Amino acid sequence: MTVKIVGFEVSPGVLSVMMCLHELGVPYQIENPASWQALKDEDFIANKHPFGKIPVLCDGDYTITETRAICRYLVSKYQGKYNDTILIPNDVHKAGLVDQYISYEYSYYTPPVAKLVVEEVFHKTSNPELVETSQKEIDKVLNVYEKLLNGKEYLNGEFSLADVLHISFTHFIFSSTKYADWWNKKPNVKQWWDRISNRDCWKKCVEKIKF
Amino acid sequence: MTVKIVGFEVSPGVLSVMMCLHELGVPYQIENPASWQALKDEDFIANKHPFGKIPVLCDGDYTITETRAICRYLVSKYQGKYNDTILIPNDVHKAGLVDQYISYEYSYYTPPVAKLVVEEVFHKTSNPELVETSQKEIDKVLNVYEKLLNGKEYLNGEFSLADVLHISFTHFIFSSTKYADWWNKKPNVKQWWDRISNRDCWKKCVEKIKF
Repeated sequence: MTVKIVGFEVSPGVLSVMMCLHELGVPYQIENPASWQALKDEDFIANKHPFGKIPVLCDGDYTITETRAICRYLVSKYQGKYNDTILIPNDVHKAGLVDQYISYEYSYYTPPVAKLVVEEVFHKTSNPELVETSQKEIDKVLNVYEKLLNGKEYLNGEFSLADVLHISFTHFIFSSTKYADWWNKKPNVKQWWDRISNRDCWKKCVEKIKF
Repeated sequence: MTVKIVGFEVSPGVLSVMMCLHELGVPYQIENPASWQALKDEDFIANKHPFGKIPVLCDGDYTITETRAICRYLVSKYQGKYNDTILIPNDVHKAGLVDQYISYEYSYYTPPVAKLVVEEVFHKTSNPELVETSQKEIDKVLNVYEKLLNGKEYLNGEFSLADVLHISFTHFIFSSTKYADWWNKKPNVKQWWDRISNRDCWKKCVEKIKF
């Protein structure tokens, strides 16, 4: 039975799950809800996501929600089944650090980037104050990343789920704002971004963005 | 070699890691940094946590940061070694849902609870507007939890790491604010809270709070 993502291809969370599936080589299909508003319907809340969010993953009779939980589940179940790509290493110490970098992404990196992308790209509004605050916040975070990435190709040394989860929101900065330079002026960050955003699997996801 | 937590016992993140260690039966020690300010020192940033946060876990030569990543690491490495408590089941589907509930905690439950606790308990200030907003936000979240907990003793049916991670911030609501009733008036939530906060392992953690 084919794995099914419930969600819209433009959603950064959905894109992260798609990327994870492509990297693991798992065939999947996408089911678009009727509308964004439909995510708040009683039926969706009761049967898909109690907080009315996407993505939701259906794997046969099994349903799981929340981007990072879905990705970890997919790795646990499918890593090594369709190809040799490793997103979370078996070694407990290496796996712990992948988890740590996923937490850096969710706790420090994505919040200011997401705020800016939602405002400027998705809502198509512009708020100079928000841009100024975002620039300061993002610059602080990227300065830390510049050090973390020193001498490394990927956050955890080898490519991992932690890198995957940084791509989707950042993609919209590069594709649809004038702020790419905030990233490009930091050499380690720039090289890392080029490396992860040029992966074939990501290019296959980007093709599907209807935006 | 004894596992070492770097942090202060009053920190909700540190308390979550302590609870996890108690549940797994892993002996540990705590090393207090010189001060809260010391978390932003060059040395701490370079050698402990690049964003200047606690807890940090040192396990021999291995260092890992971020509360939820630390807890997952501890489960992967130590579950079943000292006792029979299961915080993350081996079954991939059950484990996926534990991860999902951890994401509910981190994404929806803890943010409004933490904001209120930090303001009222840690900073000892009072902001009626924040209280009003918090009450609305927390009530929405707890209404979802009331349904999620229907007919279940714990979030994932059986006790898990997801329950553990809900305890520490909520503890401060019950111990140090007048808002416990927001929880107590919802029967399933109340029973769940009584069940998890009365665990011996949590009582051992609470004894160590210097506050």
